[in-house]
Amino acid sequence: AMLRARWVLPLAVGAGLEAALGRWEHRERGDAAEGLLARLPVLPAVAAASLPAPPGSGRTELSKYGLPGLAQLRSRESYVLCYDPRSRSALWVIEQLNRDTLSGASDRAACDFQEDDSVHEYHRATNADYRGSGFDRGHLAAAANHKWSQKAMRDTFYLSNIAPQNPHLNQNAWNNLEKYCRSLAKNNRNVYVCTGPLFLPRMEADGKMYVKYQVIGKNNVAVPTHFFKVLILEKESGEIELRSYVMPNSPVDDKIPLERFLVPIESIERASGLLFVPNILKRTSNLKAITAG
Amino acid sequence: AMLRARWVLPLAVGAGLEAALGRWEHRERGDAAEGLLARLPVLPAVAAASLPAPPGSGRTELSKYGLPGLAQLRSRESYVLCYDPRSRSALWVIEQLNRDTLSGASDRAACDFQEDDSVHEYHRATNADYRGSGFDRGHLAAAANHKWSQKAMRDTFYLSNIAPQNPHLNQNAWNNLEKYCRSLAKNNRNVYVCTGPLFLPRMEADGKMYVKYQVIGKNNVAVPTHFFKVLILEKESGEIELRSYVMPNSPVDDKIPLERFLVPIESIERASGLLFVPNILKRTSNLKAITAG
Repeated sequence: AMLRARWVLPLAVGAGLEAALGRWEHRERGDAAEGLLARLPVLPAVAAASLPAPPGSGRTELSKYGLPGLAQLRSRESYVLCYDPRSRSALWVIEQLNRDTLSGASDRAACDFQEDDSVHEYHRATNADYRGSGFDRGHLAAAANHKWSQKAMRDTFYLSNIAPQNPHLNQNAWNNLEKYCRSLAKNNRNVYVCTGPLFLPRMEADGKMYVKYQVIGKNNVAVPTHFFKVLILEKESGEIELRSYVMPNSPVDDKIPLERFLVPIESIERASGLLFVPNILKRTSNLKAITAG
Repeated sequence: AMLRARWVLPLAVGAGLEAALGRWEHRERGDAAEGLLARLPVLPAVAAASLPAPPGSGRTELSKYGLPGLAQLRSRESYVLCYDPRSRSALWVIEQLNRDTLSGASDRAACDFQEDDSVHEYHRATNADYRGSGFDRGHLAAAANHKWSQKAMRDTFYLSNIAPQNPHLNQNAWNNLEKYCRSLAKNNRNVYVCTGPLFLPRMEADGKMYVKYQVIGKNNVAVPTHFFKVLILEKESGEIELRSYVMPNSPVDDKIPLERFLVPIESIERASGLLFVPNILKRTSNLKAITAG
């Protein structure tokens, strides 16, 4: 049966909002009339605690009550991550792989997926969000990249380093891409791997462009439409090579060669809101980009 | 006629990606095979330039080639803004209003909407993106709040402070909410106003939850599903009052009283990925929240 679509704002919304959405007839109040502060646990605001005063302005009064949010960096044993509290996952994760980091006896069986309690509970994914969703808990920084340290491997199991991923993709083509990264790390001085989600628009029947993605669980964890991996290879020669891949978050035939998923880095830079090339060019003038052939 | 939906990654994508999406038959290569660097203008990377080394880790090598993005603060005459390069708009904008900032002879006719050239051109909205879209260029920090300074008023016309807004909403109910903020500023010591977009999920016919929003123009500027305004009132008594509103980005009957759009602040905190209450509670224990009645 066709359900009536309804915007969902967590907790009850004002009746006017309901009305504006044409729902006068089924006004729902929920607990909106209760005292707010009675219900609100006061938690440490990690993001807000360390905010600098806004630079370059005499009007510092503006931040008197804090700024409501800024990017949330997490620096862990195996990666540096930028958390996106709206999607309950990461904007990007960077790892460094080389011969040293790939060897070791760390055991995946000793690792469990765990909530990232450095993230405010309002903005945190839980294992329950994934349960029954049909999606795997897909690593961004891969567990098997960090055999060098049990702690580093365990750190990849924070749910902040995880995104909902199609099981077929996670276990096949994406896994192959991760293995390929490790094989490159054996033949180069270093491989920097940056991984993240994409939420790509597409044209619908009305001729307009829309971004559409599922959200899962009580915490509305965003399901990316695609994933990217950007590889920065430091070769023994000193040359820097850049390879960037995009895969859709859907079953991918793992007989398709990985090179077919190469895309121009500019595509990822535009779609993700991130920048790679300007950063790299600050370090080297010897950059070679490998793009779709 | 029903168009076939197709994910759009800016520039051509690898054939494998096309294949994975079931489009072997119409493989499009575009200019993907051209040299990347020949095409890429090297622009100053504002976001990446001032990045600190990731804290608390010995593995600072990880950021050797820069971090691909962090929150982008803009501190302007009339507001502090956090830019979201993925949506080509702001995550939030904070203004301070009081009797002083509301008076003055600034002229709106002397202001033009302008691209924010402090934002990388990959992530910047242009006036062309809005043209013919059916959406107004809706101010987040409102122009009429800043009569105190022609420069402050002009700064509200940067497209980073603008989001695509339904014309009926912009010109009626939302305008009334902005006017109400100004009326409060006359009767209180200070009013801090934080405004931003929301992208709310809703349930579709398959029983699953989805976030869906339109994007407009060549730069895919995101059209919010809703807008919020959080008002922090500093009363003459020293008491702090918090009022938070949400309106859908669609025509809203302006005969509905504004109080009907009050929502619990927790709703906005959860949906936006932002935090207000913990920040405010650091400054005062005298907080009163006004929520939907």
